[in-house]
Amino acid sequence: MQTSPFLGELIGTTVLLLLGNGVVANVVLKQTKGEAAGWMVITTGWAFAVTIAVFVAKAFGSVDAHLNPAVTVAFAVATNEYNTIATYIPAQLIGSFLGAVLVWLQYAPHWAATPGPGDKLACFATGPAIRNTGANLLSESLATLVLILGLAGISSKNLGTLAIGVGPYLVGVLVWSIGLSLGGTTGYAINPVRDLGPRIAHAILPIPGKGSSDWSYGWIPIVGPLIGGALGGVLIRWFAL
Amino acid sequence: MQTSPFLGELIGTTVLLLLGNGVVANVVLKQTKGEAAGWMVITTGWAFAVTIAVFVAKAFGSVDAHLNPAVTVAFAVATNEYNTIATYIPAQLIGSFLGAVLVWLQYAPHWAATPGPGDKLACFATGPAIRNTGANLLSESLATLVLILGLAGISSKNLGTLAIGVGPYLVGVLVWSIGLSLGGTTGYAINPVRDLGPRIAHAILPIPGKGSSDWSYGWIPIVGPLIGGALGGVLIRWFAL
Amino acid sequence: MQTSPFLGELIGTTVLLLLGNGVVANVVLKQTKGEAAGWMVITTGWAFAVTIAVFVAKAFGSVDAHLNPAVTVAFAVATNEYNTIATYIPAQLIGSFLGAVLVWLQYAPHWAATPGPGDKLACFATGPAIRNTGANLLSESLATLVLILGLAGISSKNLGTLAIGVGPYLVGVLVWSIGLSLGGTTGYAINPVRDLGPRIAHAILPIPGKGSSDWSYGWIPIVGPLIGGALGGVLIRWFAL
Amino acid sequence: MQTSPFLGELIGTTVLLLLGNGVVANVVLKQTKGEAAGWMVITTGWAFAVTIAVFVAKAFGSVDAHLNPAVTVAFAVATNEYNTIATYIPAQLIGSFLGAVLVWLQYAPHWAATPGPGDKLACFATGPAIRNTGANLLSESLATLVLILGLAGISSKNLGTLAIGVGPYLVGVLVWSIGLSLGGTTGYAINPVRDLGPRIAHAILPIPGKGSSDWSYGWIPIVGPLIGGALGGVLIRWFAL
Repeated sequence: MQTSPFLGELIGTTVLLLLGNGVVANVVLKQTKGEAAGWMVITTGWAFAVTIAVFVAKAFGSVDAHLNPAVTVAFAVATNEYNTIATYIPAQLIGSFLGAVLVWLQYAPHWAATPGPGDKLACFATGPAIRNTGANLLSESLATLVLILGLAGISSKNLGTLAIGVGPYLVGVLVWSIGLSLGGTTGYAINPVRDLGPRIAHAILPIPGKGSSDWSYGWIPIVGPLIGGALGGVLIRWFAL
Repeated sequence: MQTSPFLGELIGTTVLLLLGNGVVANVVLKQTKGEAAGWMVITTGWAFAVTIAVFVAKAFGSVDAHLNPAVTVAFAVATNEYNTIATYIPAQLIGSFLGAVLVWLQYAPHWAATPGPGDKLACFATGPAIRNTGANLLSESLATLVLILGLAGISSKNLGTLAIGVGPYLVGVLVWSIGLSLGGTTGYAINPVRDLGPRIAHAILPIPGKGSSDWSYGWIPIVGPLIGGALGGVLIRWFAL
Repeated sequence: MQTSPFLGELIGTTVLLLLGNGVVANVVLKQTKGEAAGWMVITTGWAFAVTIAVFVAKAFGSVDAHLNPAVTVAFAVATNEYNTIATYIPAQLIGSFLGAVLVWLQYAPHWAATPGPGDKLACFATGPAIRNTGANLLSESLATLVLILGLAGISSKNLGTLAIGVGPYLVGVLVWSIGLSLGGTTGYAINPVRDLGPRIAHAILPIPGKGSSDWSYGWIPIVGPLIGGALGGVLIRWFAL
Repeated sequence: MQTSPFLGELIGTTVLLLLGNGVVANVVLKQTKGEAAGWMVITTGWAFAVTIAVFVAKAFGSVDAHLNPAVTVAFAVATNEYNTIATYIPAQLIGSFLGAVLVWLQYAPHWAATPGPGDKLACFATGPAIRNTGANLLSESLATLVLILGLAGISSKNLGTLAIGVGPYLVGVLVWSIGLSLGGTTGYAINPVRDLGPRIAHAILPIPGKGSSDWSYGWIPIVGPLIGGALGGVLIRWFAL
């Protein structure tokens, strides 16, 4: 069978969500080996989820390995080439949904063992520490802007070509940094499909004792990252980073 | 004396289990310096156990440094070359047994200081957080499939040749990621000998106050990883990763 | 628009303080996702703040990516070229102020949720664990001297040219090390603007329930790092590191 | 002034002990920012202490950057060239003493704030979790043997030449691994001067409320690592690693 950018983005995003939401499930669900293991475990888990997903996406045919519509939009704006959007974003959304389904399977016996509906939702979609539309939207936008500037820095022509294998690790470190430092407010979606695909999965899947999928919040981790991504793309283009 | 793939796999797997089960002993046994230090310590310890074991295996003559029958099976399926199986897997099993014996020696005074038989078994073999044959088997299979896809990604021809020294580190990061994100259910054996060799050691060694070696569970961390490995090998071959 | 060393230092230092003080806010403020997550989270967050800020600074035109007047002074002394000082240090101060303002925005809903004025100040400026002028000054000087020697080691001509992308990561590891090992006394400013810019921001910004900006301590994280930086520069020059 | 292997080993070992024992002081002494931060912090701090010290040692003229008599002995045995011993080991001992003095200065206000004499000694020398001469000696020997095999693996001719800058990081990862996995019994001296130099400093320095320097244990972290180092050297030579 043939690899392709579509397949790379799809399978890469599946792995991203399986590993990324997997660490949340490990920490938040009850009777797991990592129960209540804390923020260091969550941010490290998400960081390496990104690193591994980038490697897998490249192997399956996506040279760019965006795995995130905010990144796709940013580089589309930066390069004024919008043709990736129609291919990448559907693949990313399908992959993120599939990744969430795999987390649900991986942690199958733990859903019934966990009483709180909010804890279960947290294994799918993000939620704010303090609910405040303006502040939450700003948080997601700013954190995503840092993601885009960091990616621009890591891949900057001023550095030269990275030693092979180092790039995906550094992208993981970038997401580690954002999680540790900026994730304390909204849980750093910084990626529209990271939130939307799993939220759809949460709404559809038969999860024992699940509650609301909290759709009223669901637009913020979509719009915020897209604002941050577009703004980052403008800066890359303006300054020819 | 002569290095060889057999010796490399054997000594590499010895180091893998010494360092890997060593961190479990440090966290789970009583009166150690790392007592109850948590999931971050266990997953970091296992990650670097892999990195260091890969370096040692290569030095002692194993170019592949599989250290894991599931990986050997995956790449045998992927390449349709099955001749490594008869050499590597016996070496891996012997090495994993020897590594477990060394952990028993390294933590010698702490076995009698630890009251629970389950805690002692945990320093040898894996056990499920919630016992459920189907779910546990699925967990081990899926986590191992991610291992194989991650290895395929890290060594993918699409990336080019990794900067020297970076590969074994990235393999450690891959195992770190799997442990953090997918290990919460069954303790991520993801390697048949990681579980079998030490379980045999547990059954044989004179450990004060030891209990059952829980052989009824023992087939899952063998069969699950082999399913995941074979499936991963099929995908590598299909997509020519 | 044009990138430049001035712009690189300015935006790099903005990112440095946003990510660096961001992790403090996440751990110290109330009702965040990382509340009370501990020293490992803070030091890891600051480490990667440095790594990411170096990449961003280089992309925006600063080849040196000092982001720290103590480093600028050290290499000015080491090379006997003082022309960087007048450009870099103002950019660093402006950037550090802007970074602190962005942390204030990022964590907007959490200032009112946090009762202690000392906790709020800690998200801007450093403070000593035990207040003792001589000891605190020595701590900051010695930690900064280690920073300069570490930078000299990482960029030493004895090593050859680093693999591309590895340098900024290693500088992050250096700051991780200093934070873990030497930061326990004064919170390792090791950078005059890291403390001064945010302290000015704390004094100016309308933060609910804020207390004193503790200006009586404010000279120590300026003078200490400059002593350590100058001393480090002398050593680099003396030994031609 | 002239750099040299002697100076490189001396200053490198000073930095090693300043950063290495610095993290112990941060975690064990009272009223520090890292008080009681746990085993992850200690092992990460020691890991990067090694990485940074290796860079500094190389900059100051030690190509080998051993910083450890057990390593010097191992490679002397491996290569049958014993001339490094008379230069390196005295430099390492002096450096380790100076590093311990700097830790004492760095944490000056915290000695009087810490009631336990055992806690103070722990910031200088190692002590066993469970005192048992045979087991403690075995622990130190085996952990040092893993150190030597790991170093042989990282620098193995089978890998080729490491990407520049990666080697010292990997050596830090090796020590991280040993600390996490094997350090739970005796606190992993794995280096005769890491224990001896600081123990002499503890005996000499005026530390408020200090107790015994526990010389009766002091030979184990000297003899154990030398056994492990010599045995490792024999293996490197035998197998031409």
